[in-house]
Amino acid sequence: MTSYDVALLAGVSQSAVSRCFKPGASVSRDTYARVMKAAESLDYIPNAAARSLITRRSNMVAVLISNVANLYYPEALSELSQQLNRRGKRVLLFTMQQESDFEEVLADVWQYQVDGVIAAASLSAPQVAEFARRRVPVVAFNRKPADQGVSCVVCDQHEGGRMLASRLAAAGHRQFGVIAGPVDSSVGRERLHGAIECLRELGLPEPCIVTGQFDYASGARGLRELVSRLGKAPDALICCNDVMAIGALDCARHELGIDVPGRMSVVGFDAVEPSNWASYRLTTLRQPMQKMALAAADLLSTQIESEGEAPHESRIFLPQFVDGDTARLSRIEADFLVA
Amino acid sequence: MTSYDVALLAGVSQSAVSRCFKPGASVSRDTYARVMKAAESLDYIPNAAARSLITRRSNMVAVLISNVANLYYPEALSELSQQLNRRGKRVLLFTMQQESDFEEVLADVWQYQVDGVIAAASLSAPQVAEFARRRVPVVAFNRKPADQGVSCVVCDQHEGGRMLASRLAAAGHRQFGVIAGPVDSSVGRERLHGAIECLRELGLPEPCIVTGQFDYASGARGLRELVSRLGKAPDALICCNDVMAIGALDCARHELGIDVPGRMSVVGFDAVEPSNWASYRLTTLRQPMQKMALAAADLLSTQIESEGEAPHESRIFLPQFVDGDTARLSRIEADFLVA
Repeated sequence: MTSYDVALLAGVSQSAVSRCFKPGASVSRDTYARVMKAAESLDYIPNAAARSLITRRSNMVAVLISNVANLYYPEALSELSQQLNRRGKRVLLFTMQQESDFEEVLADVWQYQVDGVIAAASLSAPQVAEFARRRVPVVAFNRKPADQGVSCVVCDQHEGGRMLASRLAAAGHRQFGVIAGPVDSSVGRERLHGAIECLRELGLPEPCIVTGQFDYASGARGLRELVSRLGKAPDALICCNDVMAIGALDCARHELGIDVPGRMSVVGFDAVEPSNWASYRLTTLRQPMQKMALAAADLLSTQIESEGEAPHESRIFLPQFVDGDTARLSRIEADFLVA
Repeated sequence: MTSYDVALLAGVSQSAVSRCFKPGASVSRDTYARVMKAAESLDYIPNAAARSLITRRSNMVAVLISNVANLYYPEALSELSQQLNRRGKRVLLFTMQQESDFEEVLADVWQYQVDGVIAAASLSAPQVAEFARRRVPVVAFNRKPADQGVSCVVCDQHEGGRMLASRLAAAGHRQFGVIAGPVDSSVGRERLHGAIECLRELGLPEPCIVTGQFDYASGARGLRELVSRLGKAPDALICCNDVMAIGALDCARHELGIDVPGRMSVVGFDAVEPSNWASYRLTTLRQPMQKMALAAADLLSTQIESEGEAPHESRIFLPQFVDGDTARLSRIEADFLVA
């Protein structure tokens, strides 16, 4: 059974049948109903694999993402999936244990005929060149690629680090501790460097820095290590993601008996769901995930439709400050900083 | 460039080249190295779409799952993705806003040539028949299908409901409240019915039941409603997932001033990551997610390899009790129940 048989029975053109099975294509409600009825009675299903050989479109987008079990990525994945579905694309999921597995996973991506790739991993210049050579459109998601020749959607992590440090400094904090992210995380590095840069500009003491793994346990461990190195709690603790901030917060309150925010301010990044639960009400930064997913789907669609001829574009979002209960921030000074 | 060109250059047979690109196939290290070098110099990549027309294998498994942003599903998805990757399969992700979207999403699944489907949604008898007719192997994940003619991996939710109710009853709780899941969630219904059945058998008063949406806000709202209907807090509160239990717990402690577990015991289901954080230490049940994902990947592989001729199999796991700090449970009686 071919689309021609369906068209014959439904009394419409073959291209009308095609449009009925092409997500997002325009077709009248009446035509759609007739085609679906004819298709059902003939047991016609367009074969995606056969179709993709003709149209060179598989309607699949590879999404490369690390740490799916992390509290932050599911939201990103869910938003990307919804935005791509609206454009008739489905997500072919490539999960990485850590970002450094990217090269290995990429070799597997080439085995599938995907219309494009959204990569939440740092793209090296040779990798960008490889995408171009294979004519596979790619959008870097939340990672600034090393090469300019690629579209990307990012939240300005460096500026986020600056925002938190400057607000805390303006409210009078002097001795800073930082729990950084894993060494292979560019997001973590940018947040850290933004905070350090801002503190230096303000002439404040160098922060005491320990490394974490973006998980709860390393937040608690990080705080213990900072307290042991400083001989006391820092005035302010910047954690490079929320889950570590929550781990540090629980450790401060339930284990070390440090009053938060009375004795120590604690801030995080991401505004994951639990950060807003009544036991935490974490002061943090939110990445506009819905807008970022929408932008990534738009940029990728543009590249796919233009067959890679559209100009590359960077869309950079600023993180939004979430005023929780875990940091002593003078409202007046905070408002002043924003203005 | 074809596999024949690669074979010629590498000095091996064409079937050796095929095996090198077939995940999981046996090939010597030396042959592999020669083939990869030849393939690279010739710029040869097996085209998955073309290959799938010949082998009828796409090396893609559709995973249908609802609520990706829920705290429980990411773990399931991550485990399924890892287990399928080990078998050379990638996940084509179909996300549903709610389980009742299943029929609609299924119509889209038929558009792709997948080797099989893992469905975390309740399969109706006609849907099972449709899978059989299309010869697409399917494994129901964490949902008992209405029809026996399909393999499934489930955690015994009904027994989980019984376990929690019986332990709480044995420790002396009499007045129960339950915050149930959304009406279209079979997992939620089974947990609820297990608990009710057990309380009836023990001759305890009927529990007071309110409906939630598996999210934090509806846990808090559910507790407020229960307290308003009962005129006081119940002795024990069974929440049909952890996130609602955490919402109820925060509401009890931070808003209503109910001592947990002193005045009211609170239990949940799933053992999501935050349930073990120091602010909660929730008494709950863990589903053996790794074992369940492994079983699902095994059952599906068996069905794919046998082209649907392998007998159907149900693999049923029991949830494991997690002894937290939110329920008054007499250890002696609890041990007695287990023995």
